[in-house]
Amino acid sequence: MTMPHPSRPNPPGAALEAALYVDDLPAAEHFYGTILGLDTVARVEGRHVFYRVGDTILLIFDPAATRIGSDNAQLPVPGHGAMGQGHFCFAAEAAEITAWRDWLETAEIPIEADFHWPNGARSIYFRDPAGNSLEFAEPRLWDG
Amino acid sequence: MTMPHPSRPNPPGAALEAALYVDDLPAAEHFYGTILGLDTVARVEGRHVFYRVGDTILLIFDPAATRIGSDNAQLPVPGHGAMGQGHFCFAAEAAEITAWRDWLETAEIPIEADFHWPNGARSIYFRDPAGNSLEFAEPRLWDG
Repeated sequence: MTMPHPSRPNPPGAALEAALYVDDLPAAEHFYGTILGLDTVARVEGRHVFYRVGDTILLIFDPAATRIGSDNAQLPVPGHGAMGQGHFCFAAEAAEITAWRDWLETAEIPIEADFHWPNGARSIYFRDPAGNSLEFAEPRLWDG
Repeated sequence: MTMPHPSRPNPPGAALEAALYVDDLPAAEHFYGTILGLDTVARVEGRHVFYRVGDTILLIFDPAATRIGSDNAQLPVPGHGAMGQGHFCFAAEAAEITAWRDWLETAEIPIEADFHWPNGARSIYFRDPAGNSLEFAEPRLWDG
């Protein structure tokens, strides 16, 4: 008698965390916390600041502090850490995108692109202080 | 009379897209599509493959193809593209994490870490073929 092989579980149903990397955490905190108004859920000076975006946590790391994994035997978090420009997109309905464009311009954050996709959904793009490409887009972009 | 300044909109309520970067898209497709079983929502040979993770789209890009923005005047998507090891975490309940560990081991994907956080939530960590740090974690990790 052989042991049955496990079968593939059902695909995961939600994104719990996504990550971006920055070289200046205080600048990132001003941007994500004050300009975008995200709620901070965790913060370790010189290492990371984490924000709530609905059911997903947006993790902002300084890769210089995370590239080597944890040496805490109880919490052996593996190392990671990217360089260059990442990407993250917030869901926003059409009227919210207009409001965000107005607010970002008031905050002197340049809008790098503003267009409608072939299915009609609008996206606006801008940068965080580290150069990551951020977007607000209508969720219907991915319908169907 | 001066124009009133716009006020900051309510914080965004959902993550619509998160991105990881890989140097080998076919290897990534085998991993994310076949081993993890994610549904493909878009694919451009040599540039990207996108997967649905609940209400969030996980974008997998080859940064060599995305670092320069689009030259399509109708869809002027800005450039982005990171190098090194990014991070993404899938939500999974405790029993699902056990099932994923069994499945990943059957698929010969090493489990790099497996532990419980101080609040009791379990996380397992593994790597995609490009070295990105992937995690399954119980959503209660971020409760409260």
